[in-house]
Amino acid sequence: MITPAPIITLITDFGDADGYVGAVKGVIYSICPQARIVDVAHDVVPHDIVQAAMALEAAAGYFPRGTVHLAVVDPTVGTSRRRIVALLEEAYFVGPDNGIFGLVFRRRPPRRIISIENRKFMLSGRATTFDARDVFAPAAAYLANGLDPTELGPEIDDPVPLDWPENVFTEGEVTGAVVSADRFGNLITSISRSDILEGVFSFTVRIKDREVPGPASSYYGDGVPTAGGGYRALFGSAGYLEVALPGFSAKERLSAERGEVVRVCW
Amino acid sequence: MITPAPIITLITDFGDADGYVGAVKGVIYSICPQARIVDVAHDVVPHDIVQAAMALEAAAGYFPRGTVHLAVVDPTVGTSRRRIVALLEEAYFVGPDNGIFGLVFRRRPPRRIISIENRKFMLSGRATTFDARDVFAPAAAYLANGLDPTELGPEIDDPVPLDWPENVFTEGEVTGAVVSADRFGNLITSISRSDILEGVFSFTVRIKDREVPGPASSYYGDGVPTAGGGYRALFGSAGYLEVALPGFSAKERLSAERGEVVRVCW
Amino acid sequence: MITPAPIITLITDFGDADGYVGAVKGVIYSICPQARIVDVAHDVVPHDIVQAAMALEAAAGYFPRGTVHLAVVDPTVGTSRRRIVALLEEAYFVGPDNGIFGLVFRRRPPRRIISIENRKFMLSGRATTFDARDVFAPAAAYLANGLDPTELGPEIDDPVPLDWPENVFTEGEVTGAVVSADRFGNLITSISRSDILEGVFSFTVRIKDREVPGPASSYYGDGVPTAGGGYRALFGSAGYLEVALPGFSAKERLSAERGEVVRVCW
Repeated sequence: MITPAPIITLITDFGDADGYVGAVKGVIYSICPQARIVDVAHDVVPHDIVQAAMALEAAAGYFPRGTVHLAVVDPTVGTSRRRIVALLEEAYFVGPDNGIFGLVFRRRPPRRIISIENRKFMLSGRATTFDARDVFAPAAAYLANGLDPTELGPEIDDPVPLDWPENVFTEGEVTGAVVSADRFGNLITSISRSDILEGVFSFTVRIKDREVPGPASSYYGDGVPTAGGGYRALFGSAGYLEVALPGFSAKERLSAERGEVVRVCW
Repeated sequence: MITPAPIITLITDFGDADGYVGAVKGVIYSICPQARIVDVAHDVVPHDIVQAAMALEAAAGYFPRGTVHLAVVDPTVGTSRRRIVALLEEAYFVGPDNGIFGLVFRRRPPRRIISIENRKFMLSGRATTFDARDVFAPAAAYLANGLDPTELGPEIDDPVPLDWPENVFTEGEVTGAVVSADRFGNLITSISRSDILEGVFSFTVRIKDREVPGPASSYYGDGVPTAGGGYRALFGSAGYLEVALPGFSAKERLSAERGEVVRVCW
Repeated sequence: MITPAPIITLITDFGDADGYVGAVKGVIYSICPQARIVDVAHDVVPHDIVQAAMALEAAAGYFPRGTVHLAVVDPTVGTSRRRIVALLEEAYFVGPDNGIFGLVFRRRPPRRIISIENRKFMLSGRATTFDARDVFAPAAAYLANGLDPTELGPEIDDPVPLDWPENVFTEGEVTGAVVSADRFGNLITSISRSDILEGVFSFTVRIKDREVPGPASSYYGDGVPTAGGGYRALFGSAGYLEVALPGFSAKERLSAERGEVVRVCW
């Protein structure tokens, strides 16, 4: 059992205008006054569980052992969907059971997953539509205080998986999909370095009608915008293959959305 | 007199790009190094005092006793509008006297309101257009340090009220208005549970040409987008009646803005 | 040599959705657990070095001595552009050598600038595209821990200047340019109070086909939107001449972008 240091990170789709994030923080400070609350991302596209899962994967591994990660994108709040705490080697993950922790679990399976059901650790007089404030924030704060997670409810072993593309492997080729675009318009795909044959250092990325050589670059741009079709394929900071267009948004130029097929051939 | 714990929350319409929020934080840390500064909301629509008042109402009650809430949406900064500190049972509220604290005051009348006038507690060489940095941040920081608020200036008893719709009550009916929409497009109205006859659990909400049964639901959606006119009326996390369209933005679908008339009949 | 108090401020163009800011914070807390991380601005327009430089100038001077300012807008990350730490009288500035510190350096020349080259203080297994996480965050955290900056690399004396308009002075006139617009649509120019002849208190600002009297006002608006061409010129909170249209966005009404010529005549 770890004794979590009281860092609590927050990922939500609540934005920065409505006071919802503030309510969550107030609840945490009221229960765990010594907590250090860390904003990770609040402008996740409303209801976009995949984007939240990616933000969590990008950030979580860099925090000290014992950090509590609160991640709430929760379109079915108020229904019977479960609310969970997962314990991985180094951290707690608190949020709805809707796949939001899917990428973290894929990297390292959780040691234990608890369904939060003990009303003793929820706000009294709670609303049905704001579990982040009434259920998840208290759970995170009590965990930061050292609560044994098994106090929160029974163990489960069948968390809801993330809706994430399965890459398909054939001879000399892997087929995946665009999973997201970042703020710079770089298209992030479901294909990782380890999905490409070991020892292969030269390949072609096919997306829409384009063929992009990869990995052509170790950077997005050198400050000189490329005139024409100078797309670049590179492995981004979280390890996924990305398609970028220096000085422009690859997402806009290719009109590529989540789900767009991407093939890597070598 | 309370001894405030040094939590200082921030609500502004400054956004997250211009450095204005940073200047406010720097001033606070310079005066009260032990402060815990908590971002509540910075993307309030520019000059939208009502939205800031709602964010404050949504968050303030969840913070520990002694918290100092700094809320600055201040379209008439630099004019003779007053600058105030309000002391409620449990917290301080610091900002312009333009109604921004109206919803908090409605829930519980302030014990005392002070007009901030003592230049000793303002930045020297201050600008005329940035009282958040030069007047409100120092006031909040000195209060967090334990300053007696009466040191800041004279007491007043006529704060400017918030521009907020007055609900109208007739037999079996209350008429109010849309006051805001949240990031998910849920329309929040001026009508609370207590505005509807006690014991009434079934009613009809009329907005534009729609009749929405209420409270039809205790949640926004179950993950299955409703095809047609499946609007829902429910009481949201701050207690206001909301009109939602699962999977969509009710605000956009109804083309409903602030001020749109809402009637509840039972 | 100053002993920096462990405040670390952050300015980036990473937005608030992708987890990049979270990764930076995690790295800092892992190296310097006692750090107080302060969000200053994360919605800087992607790749807009000038906007980041202005945010930094607006905020940095208000923080206590010993603060470490991390500012990363870094379009050429991964190329051979240098990575620097600058030591000014009162603070450290950490980020890419691309002009982002240009306005701070203009106010007060740095005492020392170091090129960050010592891999001992970078994350191992780092990516080529995320120096904020892998190079700048560790550098800032080690400095907050008291590291002597000369440990990070060799001294340099030729930092890259900011791409900033040079004001041109002629008899009774100074010509500059719009450098930015804030969230309220106020146009901020390259012209400061000190660029106008001492003792002159009445002048005319020419922008597009408009003549705006200045400084006509010590505030943006008094709550009464001006009907027609009621533009105002005033000195904003960072000391720059601004052109505002009370109740409206001057930027939109004038269709004025960065680079638009502004002339002040007296």
